[in-house]
Amino acid sequence: MSVNRIPVVEKILSANDSIAALNRKRFDETKTFAVNLMASPGAGKTSVILQTIAALTGRLKLGVIEGDTAPVTIDADRVIDAGMPAVQINTGGDCHLDAPMIDSGLKQLPLEELDLLIVENVGNLVCPAAFNLGTHANVLIASIPEGDDKPYKYPAIYRGLDVLIINKIDLLPYVRFNMDYFRTGVEALNPGLTTFAISCTTGEGINAWTDWLVQRSAELKR
Amino acid sequence: MSVNRIPVVEKILSANDSIAALNRKRFDETKTFAVNLMASPGAGKTSVILQTIAALTGRLKLGVIEGDTAPVTIDADRVIDAGMPAVQINTGGDCHLDAPMIDSGLKQLPLEELDLLIVENVGNLVCPAAFNLGTHANVLIASIPEGDDKPYKYPAIYRGLDVLIINKIDLLPYVRFNMDYFRTGVEALNPGLTTFAISCTTGEGINAWTDWLVQRSAELKR
Repeated sequence: MSVNRIPVVEKILSANDSIAALNRKRFDETKTFAVNLMASPGAGKTSVILQTIAALTGRLKLGVIEGDTAPVTIDADRVIDAGMPAVQINTGGDCHLDAPMIDSGLKQLPLEELDLLIVENVGNLVCPAAFNLGTHANVLIASIPEGDDKPYKYPAIYRGLDVLIINKIDLLPYVRFNMDYFRTGVEALNPGLTTFAISCTTGEGINAWTDWLVQRSAELKR
Repeated sequence: MSVNRIPVVEKILSANDSIAALNRKRFDETKTFAVNLMASPGAGKTSVILQTIAALTGRLKLGVIEGDTAPVTIDADRVIDAGMPAVQINTGGDCHLDAPMIDSGLKQLPLEELDLLIVENVGNLVCPAAFNLGTHANVLIASIPEGDDKPYKYPAIYRGLDVLIINKIDLLPYVRFNMDYFRTGVEALNPGLTTFAISCTTGEGINAWTDWLVQRSAELKR
């Protein structure tokens, strides 16, 4: 079965890459720094986005594309409540966002007015890694209660990262998590990866992450 | 793109179902109660398996198939260390187990000697829901720190469940989790679903879950 599947998957990925290149062209033309935010379900993608909005309001104009496998607007509603434009994409059960979905989402956002676009991918540590969306940076949120062995078990997603956020560090006293073991696994897959350890509950580390966004957005505008 | 993908996916699922039926036949003939254990990455699948082994040693003979996206044997090694036969299946980056993978795993296990087989699926709340493995029961582990909105965001996997395990209830004091909101979401998708609230850290609730396994295994042997 997998023998038959490979050519099909390659064709899909090649079509995806063409549209991803067009998405990237639009981000560059409008000077919108675009981030593909990935994570397991419940690692805190929406919480990180809300903290990012709170920290950047008045500094950057931010938009969000929310990917969901079902027609629920819980996350998009929370972003809109926070005062930023958001588009919800229902993948219809699909396990990842792809470049055509982003293309259709961009049609509903005032891209020319935005400094920063955050794409919240479907909660999944496997499939999103294979699909280039055309964004400038792949960011993964790892979460302390998920455990310290995730780089070893889901290596593909760690290899393709530009930034790693370690979230829920406030839970470190309550769970078994060996930070050295975790970081050794990450370093083997992606040496020197830019990493921010944060807590959306206490606010710790959020500024370092949002400063990075401000800097990258400024670089794009030069 | 999705228009082209649908017939391919249907063909794969139909081939999968034929092999799933053969897997089920082997489970029934050998009177091995088989469970497909699904969850997000880090929800505690391996911890639940290890607690289950500890509770059932001397009562049921148990085997495990470990699905991983990479050639790591961390989980399989932990099961073997606990004294039970385990087979590790590397999906080669694929996001779920399928029936042919289970078929190949079964060739390496002494199925005639086993009362219970636990299949640990790849950590993923989307893709595993679409693939029938031939097992008798679909079991999902939800985890308290993942948040209370997961049934609303990943409805497909909740609809197909026979049992729900709510793990890490020892973390309830440290995170925001509205149990009523969570249970209302589950009830809408899967009314009357058998549910066990547990903690692998304190051991709370493990016996209710393992008693259910003992009962279902005994029913299969009648």
